[in-house]
Amino acid sequence: MDFAPDVQTAGLREEVERFFAERILPAEHIFEEQIAAGDDPWATPPIMEELKAQAREAGLWNLFLPDENGAGLTNLQYAPLCEIMGRSPFLAPEVFNCSAPDTGNMELLSQFGTAEQKERWLAPLLDGRTRSAFSMTEPHVASSDATNIATRIRRDGDEYAIDGIKWFTSGAMSPRCELLIVMGVTDPEADRHRQQSMILVPVDTPGVDVRRSMHVLGYLDGPHGGHAEVVYEDARVPASYILGGEGEGFAIAQARLGPGRIHHAMRAIGVAERALAMMVERVQGRSTFGSPLVDKGVIRQWIADARMEIEQARLLVLKTAWLMDTVGKKGARIEISAIKVVTAELASRVVDHAVQAFGAAGVTQDFILAELTAHARILRIVDGPDEVHRETVARREVAASRDAATTYAVAPR
Amino acid sequence: MDFAPDVQTAGLREEVERFFAERILPAEHIFEEQIAAGDDPWATPPIMEELKAQAREAGLWNLFLPDENGAGLTNLQYAPLCEIMGRSPFLAPEVFNCSAPDTGNMELLSQFGTAEQKERWLAPLLDGRTRSAFSMTEPHVASSDATNIATRIRRDGDEYAIDGIKWFTSGAMSPRCELLIVMGVTDPEADRHRQQSMILVPVDTPGVDVRRSMHVLGYLDGPHGGHAEVVYEDARVPASYILGGEGEGFAIAQARLGPGRIHHAMRAIGVAERALAMMVERVQGRSTFGSPLVDKGVIRQWIADARMEIEQARLLVLKTAWLMDTVGKKGARIEISAIKVVTAELASRVVDHAVQAFGAAGVTQDFILAELTAHARILRIVDGPDEVHRETVARREVAASRDAATTYAVAPR
Amino acid sequence: MDFAPDVQTAGLREEVERFFAERILPAEHIFEEQIAAGDDPWATPPIMEELKAQAREAGLWNLFLPDENGAGLTNLQYAPLCEIMGRSPFLAPEVFNCSAPDTGNMELLSQFGTAEQKERWLAPLLDGRTRSAFSMTEPHVASSDATNIATRIRRDGDEYAIDGIKWFTSGAMSPRCELLIVMGVTDPEADRHRQQSMILVPVDTPGVDVRRSMHVLGYLDGPHGGHAEVVYEDARVPASYILGGEGEGFAIAQARLGPGRIHHAMRAIGVAERALAMMVERVQGRSTFGSPLVDKGVIRQWIADARMEIEQARLLVLKTAWLMDTVGKKGARIEISAIKVVTAELASRVVDHAVQAFGAAGVTQDFILAELTAHARILRIVDGPDEVHRETVARREVAASRDAATTYAVAPR
Amino acid sequence: MDFAPDVQTAGLREEVERFFAERILPAEHIFEEQIAAGDDPWATPPIMEELKAQAREAGLWNLFLPDENGAGLTNLQYAPLCEIMGRSPFLAPEVFNCSAPDTGNMELLSQFGTAEQKERWLAPLLDGRTRSAFSMTEPHVASSDATNIATRIRRDGDEYAIDGIKWFTSGAMSPRCELLIVMGVTDPEADRHRQQSMILVPVDTPGVDVRRSMHVLGYLDGPHGGHAEVVYEDARVPASYILGGEGEGFAIAQARLGPGRIHHAMRAIGVAERALAMMVERVQGRSTFGSPLVDKGVIRQWIADARMEIEQARLLVLKTAWLMDTVGKKGARIEISAIKVVTAELASRVVDHAVQAFGAAGVTQDFILAELTAHARILRIVDGPDEVHRETVARREVAASRDAATTYAVAPR
Repeated sequence: MDFAPDVQTAGLREEVERFFAERILPAEHIFEEQIAAGDDPWATPPIMEELKAQAREAGLWNLFLPDENGAGLTNLQYAPLCEIMGRSPFLAPEVFNCSAPDTGNMELLSQFGTAEQKERWLAPLLDGRTRSAFSMTEPHVASSDATNIATRIRRDGDEYAIDGIKWFTSGAMSPRCELLIVMGVTDPEADRHRQQSMILVPVDTPGVDVRRSMHVLGYLDGPHGGHAEVVYEDARVPASYILGGEGEGFAIAQARLGPGRIHHAMRAIGVAERALAMMVERVQGRSTFGSPLVDKGVIRQWIADARMEIEQARLLVLKTAWLMDTVGKKGARIEISAIKVVTAELASRVVDHAVQAFGAAGVTQDFILAELTAHARILRIVDGPDEVHRETVARREVAASRDAATTYAVAPR
Repeated sequence: MDFAPDVQTAGLREEVERFFAERILPAEHIFEEQIAAGDDPWATPPIMEELKAQAREAGLWNLFLPDENGAGLTNLQYAPLCEIMGRSPFLAPEVFNCSAPDTGNMELLSQFGTAEQKERWLAPLLDGRTRSAFSMTEPHVASSDATNIATRIRRDGDEYAIDGIKWFTSGAMSPRCELLIVMGVTDPEADRHRQQSMILVPVDTPGVDVRRSMHVLGYLDGPHGGHAEVVYEDARVPASYILGGEGEGFAIAQARLGPGRIHHAMRAIGVAERALAMMVERVQGRSTFGSPLVDKGVIRQWIADARMEIEQARLLVLKTAWLMDTVGKKGARIEISAIKVVTAELASRVVDHAVQAFGAAGVTQDFILAELTAHARILRIVDGPDEVHRETVARREVAASRDAATTYAVAPR
Repeated sequence: MDFAPDVQTAGLREEVERFFAERILPAEHIFEEQIAAGDDPWATPPIMEELKAQAREAGLWNLFLPDENGAGLTNLQYAPLCEIMGRSPFLAPEVFNCSAPDTGNMELLSQFGTAEQKERWLAPLLDGRTRSAFSMTEPHVASSDATNIATRIRRDGDEYAIDGIKWFTSGAMSPRCELLIVMGVTDPEADRHRQQSMILVPVDTPGVDVRRSMHVLGYLDGPHGGHAEVVYEDARVPASYILGGEGEGFAIAQARLGPGRIHHAMRAIGVAERALAMMVERVQGRSTFGSPLVDKGVIRQWIADARMEIEQARLLVLKTAWLMDTVGKKGARIEISAIKVVTAELASRVVDHAVQAFGAAGVTQDFILAELTAHARILRIVDGPDEVHRETVARREVAASRDAATTYAVAPR
Repeated sequence: MDFAPDVQTAGLREEVERFFAERILPAEHIFEEQIAAGDDPWATPPIMEELKAQAREAGLWNLFLPDENGAGLTNLQYAPLCEIMGRSPFLAPEVFNCSAPDTGNMELLSQFGTAEQKERWLAPLLDGRTRSAFSMTEPHVASSDATNIATRIRRDGDEYAIDGIKWFTSGAMSPRCELLIVMGVTDPEADRHRQQSMILVPVDTPGVDVRRSMHVLGYLDGPHGGHAEVVYEDARVPASYILGGEGEGFAIAQARLGPGRIHHAMRAIGVAERALAMMVERVQGRSTFGSPLVDKGVIRQWIADARMEIEQARLLVLKTAWLMDTVGKKGARIEISAIKVVTAELASRVVDHAVQAFGAAGVTQDFILAELTAHARILRIVDGPDEVHRETVARREVAASRDAATTYAVAPR
C-alpha cells in the first residue's frame, strides 16, 4: 500500500494545476462577461475556444480517455486531474475536452462504435469540434430504474423509428450539438435487461424536436448546451446507427455510468475544495461583534469538518479508481455507488456552509457559490438519486453477511 | 393554556384558506406564464392586480397590520393566515397586501412617521398602489452586526446628504417602487446604538442609482422588484424626511425586525407544508424497482420527520406571537431569534427532501420546489444569519444560568 | 389560543418546583450514598420513604391520576409537574408516587379492574406501600409489534395457566413488587387484535421465576426494581384475575401506552433541561487554551440548539396533553407517537452534548449525566422504537394526503 | 499509489484474522463468565493468560512496537491487525500484548528510557507479566489543554516529590499494575511547553493512594485495571526515575499521543465493523408488521451509511499511518487529529444504530453492544475531546489559506 502518486501523475497534476491557476481561474470572469454580453444563451463564449486551443497545445487534451484515442491514463491517474477541473466546473472540464456528456459518449463510441460510427461521430468529438448529448431520462417515469424507460425504438425495414419523450438531455440546446445517443426499448418482451438498445440520432433528424431547456434551480447551464426536453416522434435513422446491437442498451448504460459517476465524484471533490478555499479566504476579511469571522467556533468547525470529509471522500474516490483499473468496473460497482453518494452530499454540505459564511453575497451572481449550490444539489440526483445507490451498497452488505465466515451469533441467549 | 384558535381566527383562517385554494393556487401558473410572456422582468403581472382587487373586496387586506390602519389582528391571530400565504410565497402575500418589505415599512411609517410622511408614503402603500424598499444591508461589511454599517447620512442645512452603497434593497427594481427607507450613520461619535438613523428617500432622488439586481441563487425575484444594489452619492432629501429622529435608527431597526422575522417564520412554515404536501402527493404516483416511492422507508422517514418538525416549529411560532402580543417585542426577543433559526432550517430541510423525492423534476421550472429551494436557502441568511440568532439564544441562556435559583453544583466532588 | 398556564397549574408547579429544589435535589447524593452503602441493590433506600412521606403530607401525591383516586389533574395540568420530576428521574417520580410502571398499572386497575382487584392491588399501590411490574416485552420476538407476542395464557377450569418468557419486566426485582400484569395470547385463532389478554399474576405464584436482572447499558436501575427476565412455566392464577376480559389485551395495552408515553415525554423534557442546566453551569467554570469553555462557539451552539429544541418539544408535548384531554387518547394517537420520538431523541442529544462539555467527568459516577446517558438512550427503544412511531406518523400523513381537499397537481406538465 | 497491502501484511492479517475467529471470538463468553464468577472485579480472568500464551506462541506478540523490541512493523502494517483487535476491544488487544496504556508506556520506555529503566520496567511489560498506567488527566482542570495540568513534581535532593490528584489513570486498579508514568510540573516558570516532566512512579510508593475507580457510563473496565483516581501526596522517587529529562514532559506526551491516537482510531474502525456485522446479522432474523427488519428502508440506510463511512475512515487511518511512517508523527499531526475525531464519531454512530436495530436486547449484558456504546462514547473524549482536534485541523486550514499560491479573490466586486 502506498499513498504517493506515481511520477507521471505527479507531473501531470503539476501541469494541470499550473494551467488552472494561470489560465482558467483568471478566465472565469471573462467567461461570465462574454455570456452576459452575448444574446444567445446557448452560444459558447470565445474564451472557451482560446483555452481549448491552449490546453491542446500543452498536451492536456482528452485526459479522461484511457485508450489510444485519448491520453491513455488510468482512472487512478486521471482522478487528481479531474478533481482540479472540478474546482471550476463550468469552465475547466471543457477546456481539456473532458466534459460530460461528451466524455461518456466518446467512451461509448470508442468502445462499442463501428468504424463508420467512429469516423463520423467520434473523430470530431475527440477534436472538440462538435458536442453530443445523452438522451436517457424521461419525465413520466422514475428513470433511476432503467426498466421504467418507455421510449420505443422500432425496427422498420432498414430503419429504426424512435418515439418517446426525454428530458435532461444535457448539451442538446447547444448549436454545436450534432449527435444524440438515445436509449429506448427495442423488445418489450425480452428479458428485463435485454429490452433496451442505444441508437445514434443526428440532432437534425426529422421528428426530433429539441423542445425546451430544463432549468436547474434557476440556472440554464447555457454554454454547455443546457438540459433539453427532446420529443422523438417517428424519428427515423438508418439501422446501422444502432450502437453495439439490439438489446445491449442496459449493458452499455452500465458501462457508461461507471466512469461517468467517478468523474462526477472527482469533480465534486474539486467543488468542495473550491468552496472550502473560498470560505476560508472570506472569513479572514470580515468581522462581526468584535471579532473576525474566522475566529468564530462554529465556522472553524465547518472548516475542520470540510477538510476531514474531503480527505476521506477523496481517498475513497482514489481507491475506487484503483479498483476500476485493477478489477474492472463491475468489480468496483459497490464503491462506485458509494462515492456517488458520498461526494454529492459532501459537495452540497461544503458549498452550503461556504454560502452561509459569505452571507448574502454567497447567493448572488458575484460569486460562483450560488451556481455551485445548484450544481452540487443536482449531483445528488443525476446518475440515480443517492437513495438508489445506498440501496446498492446495503444489498451487497446483506449478501456479504450471509456469506461471512465469521458470525457473531446474535440470537438472544 | 388552550390550543384552540379563537372564533375570529378560525373564521378568518377558513376564509383565507378558501381564497387560497380557489383563487391563488389556480393562478400560480397564470402568474408564471404572464411573467414568461412579458419582456420586463420587473413588471407586475396583471393577474396580481386582479387577485389583489378580489382579496380587498373580500376584506382580506392588510391583515398583518395590528393597528387601525390595518385589520387590527394580533400576531397570534395573524399567524395562521400568514402561514397559508407562505404556501405560495411568490404570489399570495402580495395578494393580501402582506408582502415584505412593504409590511415592515408600513409598520414603521405607521408607528414612527409624521402626519406628513404618513400621508405621502403610507397611504398609497396601504392601498397597494405603490411599493417600497428597505435599504440596510451593505456589500462591504458583515451587516448582521448593524454597527458595521458604513453609509453616511450627513445633515447639511435643511437637508440630509446620503453617501454609501447598499445591496439586497428588496423591491427597488420594481417600477412601482417609490420609497427607499435607508439606514445610515448620522453621528459616528455617538454611543454604539445611537449612531444610526433612518431616512425616507424617494427613489427618484438625484444621486440615487439603482444600479443592478442581485440574483438569489439564479433567481431574480422580478415581480417583487428584485433585490437591488443601490448607490447613494450625495443624495439629498429634506431634513423632514428623517424617520423618528436622529440616532433612532438602531431602535427602529429592532422594532422592524421583530414582526419581520415572525412573518418570515410564519411563511416558512407554509413553505414547509407546501413542500411536504407536494412530496407526499408525488411519491404516491411513482414506482422504482417494484414498489411505489411512498412505500420506501427512507421517504416515509422524511415525511414523518417533516410532520413532527413542522408541528413543533409552528407551536413555537404561535407562542412567540402570543408573547409579542402579551409581553411585547422586547420580551419576546429570544423567541423571535429562535423561530427565525428554526423555521428557516426547517423550510430548507423539507424542501430539500421534496426535491429529492421528485428527482430531476424537482429542480426544474415545472415545479415551485426549485424556486422554493432558493427561497428557503436565503431565509437562513436574511434578517441576520442563523448563527447570529443562535448566539442571541445562547447569551440569554448563560445569563439565565447565572441568575438561576436552582443550581446543580457541577464542580467535581 | 393561550399559552399561559391556569392558576391551579401555576400554583402546583411552584409547589413542586420548591419541593424539588429544597427536598429532592439535596437528597440525590444521600440516595446514591445509601444505595452504595447497602448490600442489596434492589432495596429502596430509606431517604425515598422519607421523601414520599413528605410529599404525601404536602398533598403532592398521585399527581398523575386523573380520576378520583388521584389528584384529578388533566394531562395538560400534570405535564409541567411531570417535567420537573424528570429533572431527577431516578428519585423524583417515585417520591410523588408517580413512577412507572406503577402509574400505568394503577391506571389500568382504576379503569379496568373489578372491585376485588382494586381492593387487593390498587389500594396499596395508591398508598405507595407496594410496587408492581408490567410484563409484556419478550426476548425472542420484536415486541414493538404486539402481535408477535408468544406467551400463552390458557384457560383451564377455574384457572389460567401462563407459559412464556418475558424480559424488561421493570420493577420485578424489587422486594416490594407484589404484582405482575402479564400480557399473553388467550386465543391464537381470534382476530389479530383480539388474541391477547392481560392477567394479574402475584409475584409469588408458583411457576413464576424472576430469573435475572437485565442491565441497561451497564446500569441495574436497582432501587426501582430493575428490569427482570421472568419465566412463566405453568403459572396458575384464578380465572377472576383476568383484567377486563379475554381478548381485551391489545386494547388495554393501547390504553396504557398513551399516558405512559406522554409521561415519558414530559420527563424526557426534564432530563434535557437538567442536562442543559448542568452544561451551562459547568462551562462557565473551566478554561482551555486561554478562554473559558462558555466562550467556545461550538458549545454555545449546543446551548442554543438545546434551548430551541426543548422549547419546541415541550410545546408539542403540551399540545398533545391538551388533545388527550379534549379529543381523547385515540384522537391524539399521532401526536403521542410524535412526542415519543421527538423527546427521546432530544434527551439523548442534549445529554450527549452535556457529557462532551464535561469531558471525562461526564461519564463518571460523580455526575448524573452518565446514568442519564443510559436513561435517554433507552427512551428511544422503550414503548416501541422510534422507527415504529415514525411509521405511524408517516402513515397518517399519506392517508391525509389522499383525503386532502387542496392538491398541488404534481404530475409533470 | 497502490491500495493493495504488501505480502507480509496480507499474511499477518490472515493469521490474526484466523486467531481472532478461532480463539478470541469463542472466548468472549468465557471471559465474561469468568469475570462474573470471580469476586475481584480487578482480577484478570484465566482465559486471558491462556490466550496470551497462544498468541505469543503463534508469534503474534507486541505487534504494535515498531522497533527491535517488538514485531518491527510499520504503522501501515500494524493498522489492519489493530483493527481486527478492535472488533473485540475488551479482550483481543491484551491477548496480543497490544493494549493501552501499556503500548504507549512501552513505546516511551523503549524510546526515552535509560538502560536501567528499561530493564526494570520495560522488560516485564514486553513479556506481558506486569501492567502499567499513565497518569495525566486531572479532575480539577480541563486537561485537554496540557498546560492546565497542576500536579507538582519538585526536585528535593536526590529525589522528586510528587503532589497532585489525577484520575482516569487507566489500569491502576489492576493488582498486576506496577508502574505509574506521571506527568506534572517541574518548573512553573519555564516556557509554556517546558514546564512539565514525566516521571516513573512505582505503584507501591508511599504517598501514592489509588483511591477509587472511575466508572465509564456504568462500566468498571475491571479486568484492564479500570480508570483510577490517584492521589499523590509527597510521593517520593529517586531522581533517576525521571523520564527523558526535566522539561521534556510536553514533548514526550506529544510523542506518546500520536501512536496512541492512531491505535484508538484503528480499533474504533474494528468496533464499527463489529457493530455493523452484528446489526446486519440480527435484522435478518426478526420481523415486525409483516416484513423482516432487513427489508426496512431506514435500517438499510443505516447499513449503507455505516459501510460508506467505515470505508472512508479506514482509508484516512491508513493514509495517516503511511504518513507517520514516511514523514513522521509531526508531519502527520493534522491527520492524526482528523482520524481521532472521525473514527470516534463513526464508532458511536454505528454502535448506536446497531443498538437501535437490536431493540431492548441491544442495551443488555447479553450483547457486547451495550459496553461498546460506553466504549465508543468515551473515545470522543479521551486523548482530547473531538472539539480540540477539530480546532487543530481548522488552524492548519486557515494557515494554509494564508500561504496558498492560488487565491479566489473573494472580496466583493
